[in-house]
Amino acid sequence: MHKEAIFHRPKNEFVYAYDEKTLHIRIRTKKDEMETVHLIYGDPYDWKKGNWVSSKLPMVKSGQDTLFDYWFTSVQPEFRRMRYGFELFDGKESIVYTEKGFFRQAPMDDTAYYFCFPFINKVDVFKAPKWVKNTVWYQIFPERFANGNPNNDPKDSLPWGSADPSPTNFFGGDFQGILSHLDYLQDLGINGIYFTPIFKAYSNHKYDTIDYFEIDPQFGDKKTFQKLVDECHKRGIRIMLDAVFNHSGYYFPPFQDVLKNGETSKYKDWFHIREFPLKTEPMPNYDTFGFTSQMPKLNTENPEVKNYLLEVGKYWVKEFDIDGWRLDVANEVDHTFWRKFREEVKSIKEDVYILGEIWHDSMPWLQGDQFDAVMNYPFTYGTLNFFAKDEIRAKEFTETIQHVIHSYPQNVNEVSFNLLGSHDTPRIQNIANFHQEKIKQMFAFQLGFIGTPCIYYGDEIGMTGEQDPGCRKCMEWDLEKQNTELFHHVKKLIDLRKTYPLMANEGMLKFIEANDETNHFMYVKEREGELLLTVMNHSNKPLEVRIPIDLSSYEKYTNLWTGETKRIDETLTVQLERYGFTFLLFQQ
Amino acid sequence: MHKEAIFHRPKNEFVYAYDEKTLHIRIRTKKDEMETVHLIYGDPYDWKKGNWVSSKLPMVKSGQDTLFDYWFTSVQPEFRRMRYGFELFDGKESIVYTEKGFFRQAPMDDTAYYFCFPFINKVDVFKAPKWVKNTVWYQIFPERFANGNPNNDPKDSLPWGSADPSPTNFFGGDFQGILSHLDYLQDLGINGIYFTPIFKAYSNHKYDTIDYFEIDPQFGDKKTFQKLVDECHKRGIRIMLDAVFNHSGYYFPPFQDVLKNGETSKYKDWFHIREFPLKTEPMPNYDTFGFTSQMPKLNTENPEVKNYLLEVGKYWVKEFDIDGWRLDVANEVDHTFWRKFREEVKSIKEDVYILGEIWHDSMPWLQGDQFDAVMNYPFTYGTLNFFAKDEIRAKEFTETIQHVIHSYPQNVNEVSFNLLGSHDTPRIQNIANFHQEKIKQMFAFQLGFIGTPCIYYGDEIGMTGEQDPGCRKCMEWDLEKQNTELFHHVKKLIDLRKTYPLMANEGMLKFIEANDETNHFMYVKEREGELLLTVMNHSNKPLEVRIPIDLSSYEKYTNLWTGETKRIDETLTVQLERYGFTFLLFQQ
Repeated sequence: MHKEAIFHRPKNEFVYAYDEKTLHIRIRTKKDEMETVHLIYGDPYDWKKGNWVSSKLPMVKSGQDTLFDYWFTSVQPEFRRMRYGFELFDGKESIVYTEKGFFRQAPMDDTAYYFCFPFINKVDVFKAPKWVKNTVWYQIFPERFANGNPNNDPKDSLPWGSADPSPTNFFGGDFQGILSHLDYLQDLGINGIYFTPIFKAYSNHKYDTIDYFEIDPQFGDKKTFQKLVDECHKRGIRIMLDAVFNHSGYYFPPFQDVLKNGETSKYKDWFHIREFPLKTEPMPNYDTFGFTSQMPKLNTENPEVKNYLLEVGKYWVKEFDIDGWRLDVANEVDHTFWRKFREEVKSIKEDVYILGEIWHDSMPWLQGDQFDAVMNYPFTYGTLNFFAKDEIRAKEFTETIQHVIHSYPQNVNEVSFNLLGSHDTPRIQNIANFHQEKIKQMFAFQLGFIGTPCIYYGDEIGMTGEQDPGCRKCMEWDLEKQNTELFHHVKKLIDLRKTYPLMANEGMLKFIEANDETNHFMYVKEREGELLLTVMNHSNKPLEVRIPIDLSSYEKYTNLWTGETKRIDETLTVQLERYGFTFLLFQQ
Repeated sequence: MHKEAIFHRPKNEFVYAYDEKTLHIRIRTKKDEMETVHLIYGDPYDWKKGNWVSSKLPMVKSGQDTLFDYWFTSVQPEFRRMRYGFELFDGKESIVYTEKGFFRQAPMDDTAYYFCFPFINKVDVFKAPKWVKNTVWYQIFPERFANGNPNNDPKDSLPWGSADPSPTNFFGGDFQGILSHLDYLQDLGINGIYFTPIFKAYSNHKYDTIDYFEIDPQFGDKKTFQKLVDECHKRGIRIMLDAVFNHSGYYFPPFQDVLKNGETSKYKDWFHIREFPLKTEPMPNYDTFGFTSQMPKLNTENPEVKNYLLEVGKYWVKEFDIDGWRLDVANEVDHTFWRKFREEVKSIKEDVYILGEIWHDSMPWLQGDQFDAVMNYPFTYGTLNFFAKDEIRAKEFTETIQHVIHSYPQNVNEVSFNLLGSHDTPRIQNIANFHQEKIKQMFAFQLGFIGTPCIYYGDEIGMTGEQDPGCRKCMEWDLEKQNTELFHHVKKLIDLRKTYPLMANEGMLKFIEANDETNHFMYVKEREGELLLTVMNHSNKPLEVRIPIDLSSYEKYTNLWTGETKRIDETLTVQLERYGFTFLLFQQ
């Protein structure tokens, strides 16, 4: 038995409170090694009564990645506390795994051997706003979505779509433009908009804030913004803004003051200055975002800065009723700040969504005290590598996705921000080498999966573009130039997701097949009385496959794409076109 | 190569900020598998410059446990941020391990493959008070240390030491008794006292608080307590009190109010009541500590309770200048409360020590935002099992201790509360079956090790007693009945610890030998120009061993126990008596 492969540790994705009553427990073992795994558990203060022998629960294999199997079960301990271990059986040998190591038999002389979940305290339970898991996001880069009011165009704005985007040019996108196209967004079916920054800034991307309390005049004024929020809310669309708190812009008045007054500036401790006077060449002598002298890092430990930014966080929620904050470069700001940020912002509006921009493994930020979710780039990588780039085959793809899922608690996965692209990446059209079948299939995967999907503006109509600035083109409003077939494809997927709970975050997800030869895979989501089967054929040949699980408890199934309902015959097979996919909903 | 055994994950004991400039990095591999491990690292925004190839640092094997080797290195990244991976070589094959898995060669096209420590933010760095790592604690159970004032004895107090302790009897120990024996404590050399609860309570152990703002009258009044703190401070002795915030006592007025008024009590939300009216039989229908109806669990999420307890936390620091809080049943109280507790208490006095009572793996409480340390029971188990119970041999012992050390960051280990016994465990005399040589050796291990050792009152003079109440006997003040030889042994060890920094928390610790046949082990602590070698012979036969490391860079060594200094001859051997130990300080 490969004991070295076995891993469990409390208070992260391996054991967590799913809700105020329920603990989720996972354990990792070597791939394909264990036949059965059982949870042995009991109340920490009740072990003498011998319930450690009788309280034994089988765990289910919830997934596997390249090296490991993952096992899952859930328990509602009567007194909200639990000591526990694992009994592992590989077909020959049985061992017990505890915090104090491995034993031939479950030790009964003390509970101290066992892992401990000391108490489910409600306030510590990870709790994202309920609305998020039913949200389909749409990301808007405001300078490039639509120009509705030429009067507020920046000087030297270019005619809409008349040139390729550059790091410095402007096209006059604004709030009025968005207001004028809300019917379009409603028609598409999205119900959340994530705006990249809208506050007064210097650049076209607005990540170099000048005034956190002002709308950039090129987008409109506060009245127009309020109208935009209200109109969206009327249509059931939530609004998320971008909080760039890691750094300010170069023209942020406090930074200008430091540039001018040096050590005597009253703002000198608002930043991380290494020496005076400040210089930008050959390298800034103050901390910056990356090495960008235009983006001086804010000292979020300074109480003045902290209070200032917390006021910003509260202001836009209180005054304009926004529904979420996306936190730029969230991983480089201190945890202490984010804890306070959560506390303060949620005190204004309890169900604000807090989304951190973190590209790497993010468990330390997702313990319930900081963020509700992170931008799920590990999902993005896996999905693009398989569907768009064809760099990996079905098995590696499903293992990658299962690895991502098993890196976080289930309640985190349900609100994870699953994007295929953004203003920071090349367009999916370019990544997929303009292969429309692959792109359609990829959308089907994204929009049928768990988490909350986000569509980058224009991806739904086939817009193209390389790494930024290329991916920041003006939205194409000429119907002739839009890929309307793709639009209707995405629209239909969104509609299915909103209609059938199993298309979104309901049910227990499990991958059941992945085949590298045919390059197809299947997964199911299952809940009481219902099962959704998803099959995807990522190859240029048609596919006919048998479904490898027992579905005899169901009477009928509906093909959600065609709407066709059939009774189940004995030998159930699925036929798919090249790059085809299907969603079959089995019911009793 | 056993890839399944390899483990690393950021922001816990595997990578952490040791101080405001320094990152410590560890990785785990299968025991005895790797020949070399290198850290590959660079600035997250600078990878294009190719420094990922050149920035390669060898890691040292810092220890091993039953299944794994642990490797260590430290880096001071110029811009306080780092992307990194590991190059592992098993003698045949070389692989690179990153957040995205394993590669034959270090991927150079993107930094996103790599693990990330995004930024060292000062406020997030784990920082315990500086004085703690040079503290030797002494635990006093006030009812049983000394009776200095018969006027405040509880009714029916028994004459000092006239009976065995029972769960309910009293002997009249008090503050005046402690004041009268400060010379004794100063002579012993301890410089910190941890008091079990002193607030007004019902029982003799006082863990069932009635009034958190009052001294229990049997111990004295606030004036006497102030005098005790002041006298201790004059002698360089710090004071830590016991905060019982998980639960109150049955006679806590708010709980009495709920008992009396049920659902109409204004304190009904101060506890976790499952149904009204309250009952205690056959099981309490309200949450309790364990199943003890006398100890109703406090609802620390209720703002009133939270504020009340935070005021308590601040009051005793502000008014009496105490130096530390030991938090009872700390693992069952919410993390949110403890974060606020730290913030508030440290705002009154920055260098208060916050010590949580947690018996199991405690990394979630030791991230810098909650506790400075926990009671290190995993250390206790390992130490007792080897020295006192002889249940394990040298190899398993050293592996257990190395496992404990590698479960926490180094800055956590330096202030870990290393106890051999407490009011909750049998006395070490009883555990060791009254074997004085073993007990002496065990003290030598505890007092020469890293962390901050704690001596349970009377253990230093050989007091006996089984599991509580047996371990709570009246302190023996009759010199005839004290084991004065043991006292002087412990005193000498404390003195050495205070004299030689390498006897405490200086230097890099490494176990270098463990032999199950002879049952001896060795470890070193090393720093620039100095090395302390500790050898312990846990057998009833004398031992002569060679030192298995190269000491040729040193000129001389001093036996700290005998004071003898020698030049190093070529074949350096160590001779030890049965159950002997030695501390040899090598210098240039």
